[in-house]
Amino acid sequence: MDTATPPDLFYNNFLAAGSFSVTILGSSAALPANNRNPTSQLLKADQSYYLIDCGEGTQSQMRRYHVKMQRIKVVFISHLHGDHYFGLLGLLNSMHLLGRQAPITIVCPKMLKEIIELQTLAGGGKLQFTINYEFTDEVKGGDCPSVFEDSKIQVSAFRLKHRIPCCGFIFKQQEKPLTFDAQAGKEYKVPIRQIPAIKAGADFIDENGNRVKNELLTHPSERPRTYAFCTDTLAREETIEHVRNADCLYHETTFVGSETERAKATYHSTTYEAAEIARKAEVGQLIIGHFSARYPDLEVLRREASELFPNTLLAIEGTEIFI
Amino acid sequence: MDTATPPDLFYNNFLAAGSFSVTILGSSAALPANNRNPTSQLLKADQSYYLIDCGEGTQSQMRRYHVKMQRIKVVFISHLHGDHYFGLLGLLNSMHLLGRQAPITIVCPKMLKEIIELQTLAGGGKLQFTINYEFTDEVKGGDCPSVFEDSKIQVSAFRLKHRIPCCGFIFKQQEKPLTFDAQAGKEYKVPIRQIPAIKAGADFIDENGNRVKNELLTHPSERPRTYAFCTDTLAREETIEHVRNADCLYHETTFVGSETERAKATYHSTTYEAAEIARKAEVGQLIIGHFSARYPDLEVLRREASELFPNTLLAIEGTEIFI
Repeated sequence: MDTATPPDLFYNNFLAAGSFSVTILGSSAALPANNRNPTSQLLKADQSYYLIDCGEGTQSQMRRYHVKMQRIKVVFISHLHGDHYFGLLGLLNSMHLLGRQAPITIVCPKMLKEIIELQTLAGGGKLQFTINYEFTDEVKGGDCPSVFEDSKIQVSAFRLKHRIPCCGFIFKQQEKPLTFDAQAGKEYKVPIRQIPAIKAGADFIDENGNRVKNELLTHPSERPRTYAFCTDTLAREETIEHVRNADCLYHETTFVGSETERAKATYHSTTYEAAEIARKAEVGQLIIGHFSARYPDLEVLRREASELFPNTLLAIEGTEIFI
Repeated sequence: MDTATPPDLFYNNFLAAGSFSVTILGSSAALPANNRNPTSQLLKADQSYYLIDCGEGTQSQMRRYHVKMQRIKVVFISHLHGDHYFGLLGLLNSMHLLGRQAPITIVCPKMLKEIIELQTLAGGGKLQFTINYEFTDEVKGGDCPSVFEDSKIQVSAFRLKHRIPCCGFIFKQQEKPLTFDAQAGKEYKVPIRQIPAIKAGADFIDENGNRVKNELLTHPSERPRTYAFCTDTLAREETIEHVRNADCLYHETTFVGSETERAKATYHSTTYEAAEIARKAEVGQLIIGHFSARYPDLEVLRREASELFPNTLLAIEGTEIFI
């Protein structure tokens, strides 16, 4: 494979742009209805998979939408209301039954560890892979500490306002390497093994010892994208600073705009409130979800949010939104 | 309504035969696949509903098959492998959100109470209805003690053989009252309020003081039916006596007939083993289920079981089987 004029195929592997997307697996509020499942989302950063919340039936949704569950490296659980985690135990069990050995990280309130351990004990066994926990209980006040980081993303958490402790998450792509120019690569006969160094900024020395400047072989990388996830919560001023300039904001809209009292009483948000946060925070795009069972038709929610923030999408299950 | 010649409508209410049926809500083994859900069944005795096991997604299955979840009075959990109870917490939560106040009884291993209480605590609240527990931990050896009884059914439990403690259940209809003969009722001008007494065996004294013998007004009641439920388990001789002469036996058949070694190793049963139990126990009908994900097509399992026990049905989700 280390040839002076490698086939495009191999170059292409290095050219794949750092894609960043969220797939909606569940969009309903606590009471699943209207063929909607409780909250779950799959975040993909290139080939790395991250799960955000895991309501009952999430593993079935993964099967329906052809998501390879074993690819999931990390699970983020916002809070311990059942519609946000009752599918997790079943998912972990299925991963175990399918032979998973790779460890998984769960970012969650401390009590979830206790729940997982009790249910595993009750089932008479243990999982054959390791769970690493990262607890969010210490996320307090206006802080937004880092709670997870790998080569693809950096995740921080901040406090939302719900009936029980609940965190929002900011998922930020890591700085991406330069994009290698396949055409220039051919021209200068760059061996494949040199490409990673060139993407990291190195010049190339050709077979005759001539230096080829890095900028002749690369394009500037794309700006890292940011995805902010906020559920379940009252709409609050504090959120605006945390999610400022996010490329995409998911904010719950359990209720239509006229239901401010009900939203307040249940610690949830309305369409207008979520859209107002998106507008003030100057995010690129708003996704709304966590829809109450009382709305079989979601168009009214989309329309209301769009009045204040035009670039609003509904969280429709099975759709993948590129950020 | 207390009139000498009541309209047929009102008589008909008293004529409804004591129906006894089981609706399959989930039929898969631990790994849900092939559009099959993990184990759950709804037993109906007249208008009383009982749930047997409650795998993940059971509440969605109830919605799909138009089962009124609030009608469920009692839940029986065979054992604490997740595919038999991971849907229970979500179901209880939904009952709560929909305003349930009627108590519910759960017949289960003791540890399930701990799990329910921990998850309820984690969710920051409590359910607004009472859960009464009946524990099966003391069911031992060859015993088959009563674990629940109401006006419709009497339920006893016996030990199966699985990797963790697991119970089978025998659901027996209570003796049914005599069936009131609407035609004769009209003829003798029986007031509606007298019908319960007549169904219980009383003669009728007409407006002129004449005694009408009970047998002129009633038909003998149907024989009470019995449903036996056995999952998850090795096929064992001991089961035969427990389920003897049951009108209908559900016995798990995780594997096809040739997989005896695999069945043994995983504490499950094959088609031939289940059919052999049905044959030896002289039950009326066999339902097979808890199908491994490796069988997208179930016909081979039905055919194998039918070789030894012809009256075999597959547990197909959404079907109601009258016993």
